[in-house]
Amino acid sequence: MKQTKLAIIGAGGLTGKELTGLLAHHPNFQLVHITSNQVDGKHIREVFPDLSHLPDLVFQKHDAAVPTDAHIVLATPNEVSLEKAPEFLGQNRKVIDLSGTFRLHDKAKFEVAYKFKHTKFEWMDKVVFGLPELFREKLKHANFVSNPGCFATSAILPIAILGNLRNQIVGPIIVDAKSGVSGAGGRTEEIQFAYTHVYENFRAYKVLSHQHEPEMEEYAFVGSEPKEIHFTPHLLPVYRGILTAIYIPFAKPVDSSEIQEKLQSVAEREPFLRLYKTPEELELKKVQNTNFLDIGFKVKGNTLAIISALDNLQKGAAGQALQNLNLMFGYPETEGLV
Amino acid sequence: MKQTKLAIIGAGGLTGKELTGLLAHHPNFQLVHITSNQVDGKHIREVFPDLSHLPDLVFQKHDAAVPTDAHIVLATPNEVSLEKAPEFLGQNRKVIDLSGTFRLHDKAKFEVAYKFKHTKFEWMDKVVFGLPELFREKLKHANFVSNPGCFATSAILPIAILGNLRNQIVGPIIVDAKSGVSGAGGRTEEIQFAYTHVYENFRAYKVLSHQHEPEMEEYAFVGSEPKEIHFTPHLLPVYRGILTAIYIPFAKPVDSSEIQEKLQSVAEREPFLRLYKTPEELELKKVQNTNFLDIGFKVKGNTLAIISALDNLQKGAAGQALQNLNLMFGYPETEGLV
Amino acid sequence: MKQTKLAIIGAGGLTGKELTGLLAHHPNFQLVHITSNQVDGKHIREVFPDLSHLPDLVFQKHDAAVPTDAHIVLATPNEVSLEKAPEFLGQNRKVIDLSGTFRLHDKAKFEVAYKFKHTKFEWMDKVVFGLPELFREKLKHANFVSNPGCFATSAILPIAILGNLRNQIVGPIIVDAKSGVSGAGGRTEEIQFAYTHVYENFRAYKVLSHQHEPEMEEYAFVGSEPKEIHFTPHLLPVYRGILTAIYIPFAKPVDSSEIQEKLQSVAEREPFLRLYKTPEELELKKVQNTNFLDIGFKVKGNTLAIISALDNLQKGAAGQALQNLNLMFGYPETEGLV
Amino acid sequence: MKQTKLAIIGAGGLTGKELTGLLAHHPNFQLVHITSNQVDGKHIREVFPDLSHLPDLVFQKHDAAVPTDAHIVLATPNEVSLEKAPEFLGQNRKVIDLSGTFRLHDKAKFEVAYKFKHTKFEWMDKVVFGLPELFREKLKHANFVSNPGCFATSAILPIAILGNLRNQIVGPIIVDAKSGVSGAGGRTEEIQFAYTHVYENFRAYKVLSHQHEPEMEEYAFVGSEPKEIHFTPHLLPVYRGILTAIYIPFAKPVDSSEIQEKLQSVAEREPFLRLYKTPEELELKKVQNTNFLDIGFKVKGNTLAIISALDNLQKGAAGQALQNLNLMFGYPETEGLV
Repeated sequence: MKQTKLAIIGAGGLTGKELTGLLAHHPNFQLVHITSNQVDGKHIREVFPDLSHLPDLVFQKHDAAVPTDAHIVLATPNEVSLEKAPEFLGQNRKVIDLSGTFRLHDKAKFEVAYKFKHTKFEWMDKVVFGLPELFREKLKHANFVSNPGCFATSAILPIAILGNLRNQIVGPIIVDAKSGVSGAGGRTEEIQFAYTHVYENFRAYKVLSHQHEPEMEEYAFVGSEPKEIHFTPHLLPVYRGILTAIYIPFAKPVDSSEIQEKLQSVAEREPFLRLYKTPEELELKKVQNTNFLDIGFKVKGNTLAIISALDNLQKGAAGQALQNLNLMFGYPETEGLV
Repeated sequence: MKQTKLAIIGAGGLTGKELTGLLAHHPNFQLVHITSNQVDGKHIREVFPDLSHLPDLVFQKHDAAVPTDAHIVLATPNEVSLEKAPEFLGQNRKVIDLSGTFRLHDKAKFEVAYKFKHTKFEWMDKVVFGLPELFREKLKHANFVSNPGCFATSAILPIAILGNLRNQIVGPIIVDAKSGVSGAGGRTEEIQFAYTHVYENFRAYKVLSHQHEPEMEEYAFVGSEPKEIHFTPHLLPVYRGILTAIYIPFAKPVDSSEIQEKLQSVAEREPFLRLYKTPEELELKKVQNTNFLDIGFKVKGNTLAIISALDNLQKGAAGQALQNLNLMFGYPETEGLV
Repeated sequence: MKQTKLAIIGAGGLTGKELTGLLAHHPNFQLVHITSNQVDGKHIREVFPDLSHLPDLVFQKHDAAVPTDAHIVLATPNEVSLEKAPEFLGQNRKVIDLSGTFRLHDKAKFEVAYKFKHTKFEWMDKVVFGLPELFREKLKHANFVSNPGCFATSAILPIAILGNLRNQIVGPIIVDAKSGVSGAGGRTEEIQFAYTHVYENFRAYKVLSHQHEPEMEEYAFVGSEPKEIHFTPHLLPVYRGILTAIYIPFAKPVDSSEIQEKLQSVAEREPFLRLYKTPEELELKKVQNTNFLDIGFKVKGNTLAIISALDNLQKGAAGQALQNLNLMFGYPETEGLV
Repeated sequence: MKQTKLAIIGAGGLTGKELTGLLAHHPNFQLVHITSNQVDGKHIREVFPDLSHLPDLVFQKHDAAVPTDAHIVLATPNEVSLEKAPEFLGQNRKVIDLSGTFRLHDKAKFEVAYKFKHTKFEWMDKVVFGLPELFREKLKHANFVSNPGCFATSAILPIAILGNLRNQIVGPIIVDAKSGVSGAGGRTEEIQFAYTHVYENFRAYKVLSHQHEPEMEEYAFVGSEPKEIHFTPHLLPVYRGILTAIYIPFAKPVDSSEIQEKLQSVAEREPFLRLYKTPEELELKKVQNTNFLDIGFKVKGNTLAIISALDNLQKGAAGQALQNLNLMFGYPETEGLV
């Protein structure tokens, strides 16, 4: 039995499965409890026939009793996390929530983006946003972490690590993201995700109206003047991965070497950031099944274009969750990931 | 034998094949001569086993004599078109060129974009840019037409039809396009187009450095003040289709109904433009194998986002070529296309 | 208005759409009535935004009155065809049915294969099986035609054209077919057809238990001794096309030149059969969007392996239906198809 | 440093990469030397940016000196393995070869299948065929192992585990396999593997003439009367996985429960065989990235159809190689794999 016990509530979905697979290879986390209201009663090996090193567990219903010494990963829908996070925190468990419920500090923006009333907003004072590259120290002492959205991570980090250069940005930043099916949300038996609707096809959705937009706006500018972000996601006919183009308008022609220096200094010290010489080198294949966020950039006139790539199930969700869990429990940050 | 005879030089490639298929269903154009330096000597049915209504032709070499009464479609590489266009024009044939060689009126920009010296620049005075929605009258009297680039069409038209509203644009326009493999150029046996490099993958290429960028800048602003366009294409793991996001910065909040009115008035009178109520309705499947350019838009603050979709082999190449040929030879503009 | 009027009952599905597209290019058939219980009330252009040359029609409900001079194409579920075929035949209309309801002459086998009771079995005396290569003369005089199943065509024809060589077959014939999603049936919003279930995946279904098996057994041996056929279909992650491997056991080593001579003599006189020198040359791309059935073979010891390829929506359904309609109404058999 | 050192000759290819990834997670094998004539000089992280836990190694040329205490994995072309296997064995290293060079004991059949002269045939007396489920005891004492072909494993095991029931087989067994691109061999920049040739396409290759056929014939009948196997592979538009249909003709109607009992008794004691209730449950997704061989069967008349599924890069190559290495070096057979 490994040192720290974890329960995943909502383990039957894609993110729950991804985290289960990662934990199986982690020397210090032991998965002891998994729940799913769709596959409760089934053995983990039956639901995930293509994972290995799995613990001997059976899916329980969401409201089954959780072993007392287990800490919590919530991979549940937003409205479920709303209730369960405070419930488990009240039992002195550490909680990391993968939903969007505890990410935004502006209640009005939350309600517009997520379309329901937030009845536990007092918890926003206690939660730490789970982006290690920005909030590493806070995460080391956090009992309650909100894991960022996949698109949000892909845009926030590249902008945030520009540091003080962000003060030269003059207008809304355009973020144009392209994601595989596993990141586009929705239950896969919906008609929009039928094979005939995705294969040999491509489309934009929630144009300038995705719920990750306020998240990007809140966190990309910590330590600098806030700017608007205008974000549009698209659905790619692939399984996993997000490539994001971030177009940043500056007041005057951008100095390429300044950007290079700033990005390089951060990437060199960050275990999960990789900076490429040219943005054309980025591709989903280089990040799939890894926790890396790859970055490349190009400058033209007053525009800085940064391309980023990550695996929406890894650095966009489960991988980042494990990175956060490592910090929360004092394990090496890259353990089980690199 | 149908009324007007055509020869396609370079008919063995994807665009040549697409046009061959279209001409087979056109009541007034008769394909009488096809060339290809790769499949010369082969019968058209052997090279295109999946097309129907084909004429009984054998591929010739590029320099084979062309029947005297045939007009010319050049589906050749840029450097080949450079020589052949003037050659055929000198024989009193009408010529439509699908290459990029005769699109730009700025010689310096041409040489930067296409990386070779233009030795026939005097012909730029005689050529008409093949965008019917903008240059219909000129095309009716043209002997020499340059067919636009696929990405170029996908961006120029949506911007150009904004008409006088373009004068309110305040900065560089961001164009972010996503294209299927048949539009991304290159010979398909290059390693970058190997199945394992495209499947379950996605990437940007020629970031802010694609040769269609000066073409967009030259034609999107005819009749208004020129602006910079910053263009990045991406390679989709699909066969055909381009979805393009165009982000236009205005001086002040954009009036959605103004945009609606302007776009709708143009779309209503244009046979190949379709305006959708929302941009989320656009998808490659609705335009594949058609000559339509679909458009939808969304406004946020000072940003107008227009999404466009077309089939790169149709409205992006062969379909548009046929639309131009109809005008050049006095046939109904939509003949063989709608 | 073209010469012969047709109505498609159930025109909203994939086969109905395919036939609609074909009829648009046929000089003598005029589509005058289309029905669908899912999209009734919608204009044909709205439902098929990617087809051209469409007539100006609105989808009606299945039970709407059909113009008196229209003949009928039934693209309806089996149980609906059961009722509607006799109904329309009783109105002196010619009927071609694309369902499986009127293909089998053995009532017991029908009920096992299709799992419902056949209450109109007397019509089996009047129907002609729609395989032109086998029943051309009967089809010329038929008022009622049952269009074959897609898999069935892919196996019946290659076996049947062996002619008297079939008498040397000694055991069950193994038929192993691989079909794109559009041929695998089922409503596309079923979970088994969700993108995540089809993409980067492959599986067999209805192993040795598909309803086309008795159809293959009934028609592949007309004029020879019947043999068992053991058939297994598989689901390919592509949109259209079926490649079928047919393994035929002979009593003694198979004479390759005998097979070549037999197949070649038939292919030479049949407009829609193409015989290749080697079976490795067959591929879906050569038949997609055509009405061809491609064939190639290889011999090893006592085994004759024939590979066939067709487009399940064309020669496997709508294309073959049009080929049959041409015969039924006295038009050139290849009209609108080649 | 882990206990047993390994070198992979030819580590830059797909199989080499797969094994590298597996070894990274194995507690007892340490990868100390990797070679590739294409990427020599490059760091392992640069060539495999999407693998984790990698050792700090640089690719060497094939003929670079190998650390003296390292044992050898040959992931080289057939002709290279021919020379290198004896060379390394002569240095007292254990060798496992993934090529086809040392699998067949019939020299004439080898030369027909692989099309070159075997100049080291004396080594066939020393090599052990790397199928643990059949040769476990021999493998525990083997110094020289030949890893089976991917298709071969997918067919040999299901037939072999029928045990004495194989004596009732009356004729050639038909094996019809469908493989993802990573298993179909060939250098991926060949035109046949260009995206446009594989996507939305499917075809058979080496019909009844693949080099794995004699391998299947040699090993599927160990302990029973030999029969002919007639084998045809096909190329699927997916990345990894092989689904194989095996049609076995018996003298009389097959007893389903007899088959069930035989297969189940073997599957229950074998860690990498999974038997499903029905063959329709098998799919590539359940075996991808695992070392499992899944099996299901259906009986009809005198035909037994067995469907098998495996990941060609795992149980079809690298996974099986690791399973063999575990036996060769005395580690638990499932270590690093389950």
